[in-house]
Amino acid sequence: MNRHQSDERVLPSTVTWSCPTPLVNSDRVLIGHGGGGKLTADLISRIFLPHFKNAHLDRLCDAATVAAGSAQVALATDAFVVRPLFFPGGNIGDLAVNGTVNDLAMSGAVPRYLTASFVLEEGLLLSELEAIVGSMGRAAKRAGVEIVAGDTKVVERGRGDGCYISTAGVGAFAPGIDLDPRHAQPGDVVLLSGTIGEHGMAIMSVREGLEFESPIVSDSAPLNGLAQTILRACPDTRVLRDPTRGGVATALIEIAQAAGVGIQLEETAVPVQPPVAAACELLGIDPLYVANEGKLLAIVPPDDADAVLAAMRQHEYGREAVVVGAVVGRSELESSVALTMRTSLGARRVISMPIGEQLPRIC
Amino acid sequence: MNRHQSDERVLPSTVTWSCPTPLVNSDRVLIGHGGGGKLTADLISRIFLPHFKNAHLDRLCDAATVAAGSAQVALATDAFVVRPLFFPGGNIGDLAVNGTVNDLAMSGAVPRYLTASFVLEEGLLLSELEAIVGSMGRAAKRAGVEIVAGDTKVVERGRGDGCYISTAGVGAFAPGIDLDPRHAQPGDVVLLSGTIGEHGMAIMSVREGLEFESPIVSDSAPLNGLAQTILRACPDTRVLRDPTRGGVATALIEIAQAAGVGIQLEETAVPVQPPVAAACELLGIDPLYVANEGKLLAIVPPDDADAVLAAMRQHEYGREAVVVGAVVGRSELESSVALTMRTSLGARRVISMPIGEQLPRIC
Repeated sequence: MNRHQSDERVLPSTVTWSCPTPLVNSDRVLIGHGGGGKLTADLISRIFLPHFKNAHLDRLCDAATVAAGSAQVALATDAFVVRPLFFPGGNIGDLAVNGTVNDLAMSGAVPRYLTASFVLEEGLLLSELEAIVGSMGRAAKRAGVEIVAGDTKVVERGRGDGCYISTAGVGAFAPGIDLDPRHAQPGDVVLLSGTIGEHGMAIMSVREGLEFESPIVSDSAPLNGLAQTILRACPDTRVLRDPTRGGVATALIEIAQAAGVGIQLEETAVPVQPPVAAACELLGIDPLYVANEGKLLAIVPPDDADAVLAAMRQHEYGREAVVVGAVVGRSELESSVALTMRTSLGARRVISMPIGEQLPRIC
Repeated sequence: MNRHQSDERVLPSTVTWSCPTPLVNSDRVLIGHGGGGKLTADLISRIFLPHFKNAHLDRLCDAATVAAGSAQVALATDAFVVRPLFFPGGNIGDLAVNGTVNDLAMSGAVPRYLTASFVLEEGLLLSELEAIVGSMGRAAKRAGVEIVAGDTKVVERGRGDGCYISTAGVGAFAPGIDLDPRHAQPGDVVLLSGTIGEHGMAIMSVREGLEFESPIVSDSAPLNGLAQTILRACPDTRVLRDPTRGGVATALIEIAQAAGVGIQLEETAVPVQPPVAAACELLGIDPLYVANEGKLLAIVPPDDADAVLAAMRQHEYGREAVVVGAVVGRSELESSVALTMRTSLGARRVISMPIGEQLPRIC
C-alpha cells in the first residue's frame, strides 16, 4: 500500500472521467472498482454512462437535479456495505441515512424524504437489525427527513455479510441555489469544515485492532444544516462536496477536473487529529485519501470566504472550519495536474487520484 | 412445502400487519423474512415501523406519496437479489427497473426518474455486469424513465452473489388520481391483466433444471402504460397492485386486510399457462403464491369493469385480462378471513398468507 501511494505522489494524474481504455487488464470486478478512485471512475465511464446516458447523470454530481411538476428536486442514492456493521461513532444504519442526506445537501437541496432497502444475510441477529434500524430512525429525525418507503430481501448464509443497505433520497431546492463543481474558478477559496480521516480510521482501527489513548470515533453526521448555513452566508457558493470514499484528495481532484481548474492545498492547514495521524502512519495511509462522513469542502468566492468561515464556526459540525487552499488556473500547474499540495517544508507535491481501494468497505 | 401449503389452505388467516408477537421463535433473520409473506409482515411491523414511524410509511403501499414543492410525487424502492442473475425472459437488471417502475405505476403515478445502486461481488465478470447494465438502460427507455443517479460498492468473494441492485424511483401524479388499497369496497370487481406465475416458475425451472416443451419465460415488463390505460378508462379505479413476491394471493389478502373487506376469487377464471401449471404441480407450489413481474390486479367499481377490461385488452400487456373475482363484505365470510376461492368443483376454500418463503430470491 505504501509503495502504491508513493508512486501516486510522484506521478501526475493523467486519467479523467472519460477514460477510453481500461486501467487494469481484468475481465472481472475487482475490489478496487468500489474504491471511489480511478477504477471506479473507469467502471462508470465504460459501463454505466454509455447505457444510462442522460443529461442528469452526465453531470456526475453526488445528486441529480430533476423536475417534479413545477418544482426542481434533487435525487441521490448510495449503497452501504461497511464492515464491521457497528463501529465507534455509529453503525451502518446512521451511516446510510447521513450518507444520502449529505449527498442531497451537497447539491444545495434540503433533504426531505428517504427510501431504504435492505439485503439481509440469513442468520443476522434480529437484535442487531433492530439496533441498526433504530439508529436509522434517530439519524433521520436528527437530519429532519422521513423514511417513507422500504424493502427487505434475505439472502442465504455466505451470500452477504449481515446487512447491506441502500438509501435513496429526495431533496427540495430553495430558489436561486445552483451548485456545480464546474463553477469553481481561479481565485476561489477552499474551506474544510474540520479534521479529516476520522471515519475511515475509526473503521480501520477496529479491523486492525489498533488501540490509542483516545479511541478514534467516526465523524458520521448529517451536514444539511451546515450546508444551509453556508448557503445563507454566501448564496453564491460555487461547490459543496463531502469528501467520503477517496477522501479530500479525490473530492478536490474531481472538482478540479470538472471545472478545468487546478487546486492548491496547504498541508499545514489541513487538520488531522493526533490519533488519526498516528493510525495513518502505522497503516501507511495518507489521511488525504481517507473517507470522512461528517465533513464538507466548500468552494466560495474570495470576498465571501471570511463570512462563510465565521458562519461555519458557529455551527455544531463546522466549529473547526479552516481555509485549506485555493483554486488556480490550470496554466499555473502542469496542464494535466488537478491538485497539488504545498508541504510543511515548502515543497510542491502533485496529488493524484488513487487507482483502487485503499480501505475496502469503509462505507 | 406441500404440507405447509395444505395447512395454509385449511386455516384461516388470523395474523394481520400489526402482529404483536413474533411468529417464529428465532432471534435471527431467516430466509422466510424475505418472502413477502407473514414473516416479512412481522419483521416490518415489529422492527421497521416502530423506528421509521410516519404517515407515509404507515400506509404500507408499494409507493409513498409525498409533497415536492407544490407537486405530489410518488417514491418507491426495491432491492433485487434474484438468483440466477440471468433467466429466460430477463435478468436482474431489467427486473430492477421494471420492479420500481411498477411500484410507482401501481400508486397511479407516472414513473419519471430512477436511481440505481449496485453491490457487486469481487470476481463478477465485467461482461455480465455490462449485459445487466445494458438491459437496465433498455428497460428504462421502454418504460420512459431516466436513471439519473447511481452508486457502486464492491464486496469480497463470498460476501455477495455476483450482483445485487437496489432501485428507487420518483413518479408524478396526474390531478385527481387517488389509489389506495383501503378504497376497495364490497361490490367492486377484481381484474387480472393476464396469466400468472411465469416469473417465479421461469426462475424455479432454471434452478431445478426442469424442461418443458415450451420453456417458461418471465413476464417481467413495465406496467406504467397499462396502469395509465386503466386510469383513463376509469379515473375512479380503487386499487392497482402488481402481485410480485407472494403472488396474487398475498396481494389480494393485503388489499382485503387494508380495506377491511373480503375478496372472493373464482379458481376457473384465473389463467395459468400449461407449462407453469405443470411446473407448479411438479414442485408442489400453488401458482396463486408465485411471483409475477409483469401482471397487475385492478379493483374497479362494478359499473366500470367492462370498460376497463376492454381497454386493458387493447394494451400489449393486458391482452389476456380477465375478471377473476369480487370484493365482498367481511360479514359474508368469516370475520377473520380476507380471501376465499371458489374452486372448479364449487367448494369454497380459505386462502391465507404464506408464512415464509416458498421461492427464495425470486426477485
